[in-house]
Amino acid sequence: MNVQTCVFCKIIAGQIPCTKVYENDAVLAFLDIGPISDGHTLVVPKAHTPRVDKTDSHTMAALAQALPMLADAVQQAVGADGYNILCNNGLSAGQIVEHVHLHIVPRKKNDGLFNQWPSFQYPQGKAGAIAEKIIQNLNLSRVRP
Amino acid sequence: MNVQTCVFCKIIAGQIPCTKVYENDAVLAFLDIGPISDGHTLVVPKAHTPRVDKTDSHTMAALAQALPMLADAVQQAVGADGYNILCNNGLSAGQIVEHVHLHIVPRKKNDGLFNQWPSFQYPQGKAGAIAEKIIQNLNLSRVRP
Repeated sequence: MNVQTCVFCKIIAGQIPCTKVYENDAVLAFLDIGPISDGHTLVVPKAHTPRVDKTDSHTMAALAQALPMLADAVQQAVGADGYNILCNNGLSAGQIVEHVHLHIVPRKKNDGLFNQWPSFQYPQGKAGAIAEKIIQNLNLSRVRP
Repeated sequence: MNVQTCVFCKIIAGQIPCTKVYENDAVLAFLDIGPISDGHTLVVPKAHTPRVDKTDSHTMAALAQALPMLADAVQQAVGADGYNILCNNGLSAGQIVEHVHLHIVPRKKNDGLFNQWPSFQYPQGKAGAIAEKIIQNLNLSRVRP
């Protein structure tokens, strides 16, 4: 808990109100106050953690286990056809509050959200070189059931 | 496994090659062949499941537990400042392959990706009404540790 500085910790502590939709020992879910679609929901771990790469696997599991139920309920509630689950990590990725939060963004056909997907092809050999660097950087001890 | 029709099941079965970066009993991670940034990685459950809302909590936990390690390695490998984790569910949300997959998209400052965030404010009373509908649709038996 980082109640001095973190707005999500203040919400979890009840110091700032939220429109709660779900809570358990490890997780709180509430409506985003600046939604990009009706029903846009945030799912946060109660334990303060700034980014996914700094988070333990137990906390990640608790977050993920709530997602099927929450995603189902959110899309039913607003009559959506689908949804994006999005987690921004780092300022360059659009993260504003430095407490891990998963966005569930309900979607409807042709709603115009997230319609940029500028995919490209790697030149010969580049994918293999990148994969090799990723593999070298894997800390396998971090994946714990 | 749905090897007849699902491209990710074919990859998991070794029938289609991939640039693998990580694998365990439950999860496979490999480079996206149509990346939107260098190092763009997909993380998939080995068990076929079309969407997060149709997925059991055990499978979701296995996916999530690999994310801190993978996100860390991916961003280090390409010298990124951050990353988005994105999971599209349903055609309206941009899902093309109907097998749950998490995108890890490395990000660098001012790279121009995902720069649309058209947030709005709910009119008085609407957030509460939506939250009430979400809560009514929660199937609490689905969250299992």
